[in-house]
Amino acid sequence: MKTFFDCIPCFVRQALASVRMVTDDEAVQEEVLRKVLEAASAMDLRKSPPAMGQYIHRVIRQLTRDEDPYRRSKDRFNLLALSLYPRFEARVRRSKNPLETAVRLAIAGNVIDFGVNSDLTEEEVHQSVDHALKAPLDGDLAAFREAALNAKSILYLADNAGEIVFDRLLIAEQLPLNKLTVGVKGRPVINDATMADAQFAGLAGLVAVIDNGSDAPGTILEDCSEAFRRRFDASELVIAKGQGNYETLSQVQQDIFFLLKAKCPVIAEDIGCKVGSLVLRRSSCAKASAGKGNAYAGI
Amino acid sequence: MKTFFDCIPCFVRQALASVRMVTDDEAVQEEVLRKVLEAASAMDLRKSPPAMGQYIHRVIRQLTRDEDPYRRSKDRFNLLALSLYPRFEARVRRSKNPLETAVRLAIAGNVIDFGVNSDLTEEEVHQSVDHALKAPLDGDLAAFREAALNAKSILYLADNAGEIVFDRLLIAEQLPLNKLTVGVKGRPVINDATMADAQFAGLAGLVAVIDNGSDAPGTILEDCSEAFRRRFDASELVIAKGQGNYETLSQVQQDIFFLLKAKCPVIAEDIGCKVGSLVLRRSSCAKASAGKGNAYAGI
Repeated sequence: MKTFFDCIPCFVRQALASVRMVTDDEAVQEEVLRKVLEAASAMDLRKSPPAMGQYIHRVIRQLTRDEDPYRRSKDRFNLLALSLYPRFEARVRRSKNPLETAVRLAIAGNVIDFGVNSDLTEEEVHQSVDHALKAPLDGDLAAFREAALNAKSILYLADNAGEIVFDRLLIAEQLPLNKLTVGVKGRPVINDATMADAQFAGLAGLVAVIDNGSDAPGTILEDCSEAFRRRFDASELVIAKGQGNYETLSQVQQDIFFLLKAKCPVIAEDIGCKVGSLVLRRSSCAKASAGKGNAYAGI
Repeated sequence: MKTFFDCIPCFVRQALASVRMVTDDEAVQEEVLRKVLEAASAMDLRKSPPAMGQYIHRVIRQLTRDEDPYRRSKDRFNLLALSLYPRFEARVRRSKNPLETAVRLAIAGNVIDFGVNSDLTEEEVHQSVDHALKAPLDGDLAAFREAALNAKSILYLADNAGEIVFDRLLIAEQLPLNKLTVGVKGRPVINDATMADAQFAGLAGLVAVIDNGSDAPGTILEDCSEAFRRRFDASELVIAKGQGNYETLSQVQQDIFFLLKAKCPVIAEDIGCKVGSLVLRRSSCAKASAGKGNAYAGI
């Protein structure tokens, strides 16, 4: 997805909210704002929004001299999600449609997104779960089930810390562990899940986990390690969580299911759904034929 | 009032909304965005927000090659307000407290602000009137009445087109016409009232009207004509309508009553009121003694 004009004021708002989360130093806040404004004034709008997110968080880490400024907040939401895990696990197991319940809960976890909501409370996580268990699911669950069953290899791209615990529920309870690899970010960027979060969530002991080598809040393939790109290319199915992965992969030729809560009006419009929708959508850019190799249509 | 960090994303949002109101040309929209981002990245935050508003609308007028791109929208809201005028006039006349009713209606008119709401509908104007007639008035009406009675000269700074018709109600029905001058903008800037709107509203035939020589969406005294500054300085009382006048005059040493609807959280916080409040506040920077001359504490 390209960067739309409406993304621009949102970048500035997000940069301010993000830097305020990690420092009260107004000189640092002002410098982040000025640098982001300057970069936005010259940005290539053909790039996807996470390219600017990557820049914003590099500036924040550089100016706060903190390589992982959201570490404590990430731990907090990891712990919250882990404390809820046994209850959700039981809920999936006793569900008439366990895959659907696990998909709904995985989407519920996508509310833990500091880019969209820097003031997120635990109460909002609970509300998101309640909503996700009842609201309509915008997508074809049967097609998802079939694709997951038939694919010889699956790459599951995690999104945020905390959320990755909800992903574990779907992965461990409903997906074929032996042919699945979880992808996480290569370095900290806002509250995106890294290898540390995969370990915290208990995923690293269950399933193969690969880091993508990148610090973009999405999957900018050109910015990822060669090992990750090879894995991406070789996967018959990609399951991509969250808005950042949608924004960066929606035009990539690959068989991808996007699982997310549509929190932003620009993304909702691009997907063709309402804001707040629970989305399980198959990419319209699926490869013409398997094994043909992947031509990135993304940036 | 200085520019707060929270004003910065709002500038970008306003610039985009404003240029979209006047052109569908995406190249123009993009150029406005880029120029505003660049200017914001280097702006002097000690200046008040309307300094950036002035820049934004100069860029929009220059790139659209239209000296008054909001003319039609201004006429629309002038006509709407004029069509409501007889009803409001009757309402003021039969009110138990006609000054209060006229003040409330003048504040209701302050909803006609394209900077805050570029999608304003006629329905919202009606809602604003209903709200303003019922909601608490945050201010000292008795002090306002006394100041208006005692002042030898009053300068009434109008805000927007459409709104100026609501001001006429207060001015013509409740204030001493013979010692009052209405101030309007010197050149078009967004939907701010100019001399054309004072004429349209029927004010120009009732009372003295002076233009301030400036195209800022507020009253940046340094940017105003010498004639206007002399009039400002010589006035014993200033009645300043709207957020832009508050932002630019809140720190000026002069006896000012600010009449506005607090539509923005930053301004509401600066005033010390809730968003949505009907505000009639006397400046805390009133001159120490009359006739002492005016030292601008503003930018």
